[in-house]
Amino acid sequence: MFDFKYFTPTKVIFGKNTESRVADLIKEFGGTKILIHYGGGSVVRSGLLKRVTDTLDAANINYVTLGGAVPNPHLGLVYEGIELCKKENVDFLLAIGGGSAIDSAKAIGYGLANEGDVWDFYDYKRKAEGSIPLGVILTIAATGSEMSDSSVITKEEGLVKRGYSSDYGRPAFAILNPELTMTLPDYQTACGCTDIMMHTMERYFTQGGNMEITDALAEGLLRTVKKNAVILRDDPQNYDARAEVMWAGSLSHNGLTGCGNDGGDWMTHKLEHELGGLYDVAHGAGLAAIWGTWARYVYKNCLPRFKKFALNVMEVENTGSDEEIALRGIEAMEDFYRSINMPTNLRELGVNPTEEEFALMAEKCAIGVGGAKGSAKVLNEADMLAIYKASL
Amino acid sequence: MFDFKYFTPTKVIFGKNTESRVADLIKEFGGTKILIHYGGGSVVRSGLLKRVTDTLDAANINYVTLGGAVPNPHLGLVYEGIELCKKENVDFLLAIGGGSAIDSAKAIGYGLANEGDVWDFYDYKRKAEGSIPLGVILTIAATGSEMSDSSVITKEEGLVKRGYSSDYGRPAFAILNPELTMTLPDYQTACGCTDIMMHTMERYFTQGGNMEITDALAEGLLRTVKKNAVILRDDPQNYDARAEVMWAGSLSHNGLTGCGNDGGDWMTHKLEHELGGLYDVAHGAGLAAIWGTWARYVYKNCLPRFKKFALNVMEVENTGSDEEIALRGIEAMEDFYRSINMPTNLRELGVNPTEEEFALMAEKCAIGVGGAKGSAKVLNEADMLAIYKASL
Repeated sequence: MFDFKYFTPTKVIFGKNTESRVADLIKEFGGTKILIHYGGGSVVRSGLLKRVTDTLDAANINYVTLGGAVPNPHLGLVYEGIELCKKENVDFLLAIGGGSAIDSAKAIGYGLANEGDVWDFYDYKRKAEGSIPLGVILTIAATGSEMSDSSVITKEEGLVKRGYSSDYGRPAFAILNPELTMTLPDYQTACGCTDIMMHTMERYFTQGGNMEITDALAEGLLRTVKKNAVILRDDPQNYDARAEVMWAGSLSHNGLTGCGNDGGDWMTHKLEHELGGLYDVAHGAGLAAIWGTWARYVYKNCLPRFKKFALNVMEVENTGSDEEIALRGIEAMEDFYRSINMPTNLRELGVNPTEEEFALMAEKCAIGVGGAKGSAKVLNEADMLAIYKASL
Repeated sequence: MFDFKYFTPTKVIFGKNTESRVADLIKEFGGTKILIHYGGGSVVRSGLLKRVTDTLDAANINYVTLGGAVPNPHLGLVYEGIELCKKENVDFLLAIGGGSAIDSAKAIGYGLANEGDVWDFYDYKRKAEGSIPLGVILTIAATGSEMSDSSVITKEEGLVKRGYSSDYGRPAFAILNPELTMTLPDYQTACGCTDIMMHTMERYFTQGGNMEITDALAEGLLRTVKKNAVILRDDPQNYDARAEVMWAGSLSHNGLTGCGNDGGDWMTHKLEHELGGLYDVAHGAGLAAIWGTWARYVYKNCLPRFKKFALNVMEVENTGSDEEIALRGIEAMEDFYRSINMPTNLRELGVNPTEEEFALMAEKCAIGVGGAKGSAKVLNEADMLAIYKASL
């Protein structure tokens, strides 16, 4: 196993009606002037924004609002947020929504606490040396950004989608009320479950360093999400299943399921990032569309892990050769994706790239990872192109 | 399931030679004048204290030292530490050792940041409103105090042993180097594994609120410790097994394995506390000596959980009635204790109380829990007496 750091300072307040405690939490973390950052209109239409601002009004906490965070959130809105916060002397950020609003708020925080262009961090030019405190009211269980150190921002010019990770990006608090996720469309719920599982799977398929306890936690988390994703397909209002998935989402990306390993593989995410940059596809669906092809491309190079995954997560029959068991696990995972109406290839995702687009995605992906990357198997640009094309 | 809070701000630095980073970590958390608090001579004899002070000297960090923290750490030493810190203007505490040194340091921190008698907190009279930052270099995997909110202090007068929990008690950082635990006597290693498992088992045997994901994490953690405790019995220098147990120790008591439940049972701990107050027994061994009797006394009242434990943790045969399966699980747990040379009753623990001592322990235990307590089954003083006597 490898040495590791584990740092999850986010105070999680989990349960029904917990958003009513937002003012107390903001005060606890010293906020006096707040930017409330959110995405689309659902936060407005559901009445959640009004409930939150009423709570802040009652507590005499001043705020400004900035909506408009879109999936694959844009750098332009980040700049706008930074300017607004400077003008209004904001000292605390409150994101209401899912990964888009949270990631965008993280970038605004970096921009406020550091001189120069905030894109530098996402362009790997330098590291952030601070942020301002961020609170979250989560409405979509998916990205895990509410406890994670990472954020992903898309620069409109050239559609460059990049992630940046820093402990300064970890939220001060996260309010997790499973009821707030009940109005999500079924497709978004399934996308979220896919993304949640992938955050642990990326950490699981590695060449080494795996701890038994980390594996046990990872496998338990994956089995739980897999089971409850199917429950939510049939019963979207099931509070307990919403809660299981929501908590799994935070734990799956806060670092817990990777302790001791070599850092993880992450190539499914990297391959999907270029899909998300070029086409308007949901992140979770893009992951599902790529994963099976990636898995078949790399599994022989990482056979013990794929076998373990097949037995302990997908719970397939333990007969035949290791390769047969591993393949049975990959097939079972694809069956699971289909069972929750997720795509298992690009056509099902609704994407049919030209040869030039395949080549462009592979080229951008290779640049994005600095040439080659992966743990289950190190992939170069030619590998990336092969996987993209085979996933059609 | 119940609503919950999850807050584990401790920065964990895990791996070989990580104690060499202590000066940087102290600076990161703003420490300028340090109290180094430790227990017995092993920290001195092993050269660890010297290595740490050399590191601080090289970084121009001033410190004073206070040794002498004993198992069931005493209030007198806490008072002494508070006086020393006030005199020396200490602004950061560094505990080197296991639960004794850490718990004692937590109490010193409360005493420094709050007016009045620090025992008030342990006597349930008032709540701490702050502390000063605490760093830990862990040398014994057992209590989980390096990430937990709890500390246990014994008042010499009347041998009153009390625990106090506060988020202010959670350490700022914890350095976890499994190599530092390799010189522990085998008995202490086994006691540590017992204590670690019990922190999750106390959270597991409840009447409700259990989340599937919490159960999956708890069961995975318990299986991992059970397996690696046996490895360490035969091969105490096994780094990987030391690491599995050490990380499990932190996760088992930081709150992770109780999310969503009703708060847990905790009666095995409470019953053992009185044993530890009256006799000089190791905490882990005391827990093992009590647990089987407690389990047989309560299991019918909490049958689904005992059955699940038997199947998913002890992995016993799934045949017969629920009661038979539950009892098979309890027996398997006792077999495990015996396999790592832990006692399964008071005689094996080396304790043979008189009728008066039994009555005194039950009376003090009942007072300590405010009359009656427990989740698997609520126990009153008569129940406590019956369990003590049956555990002989």
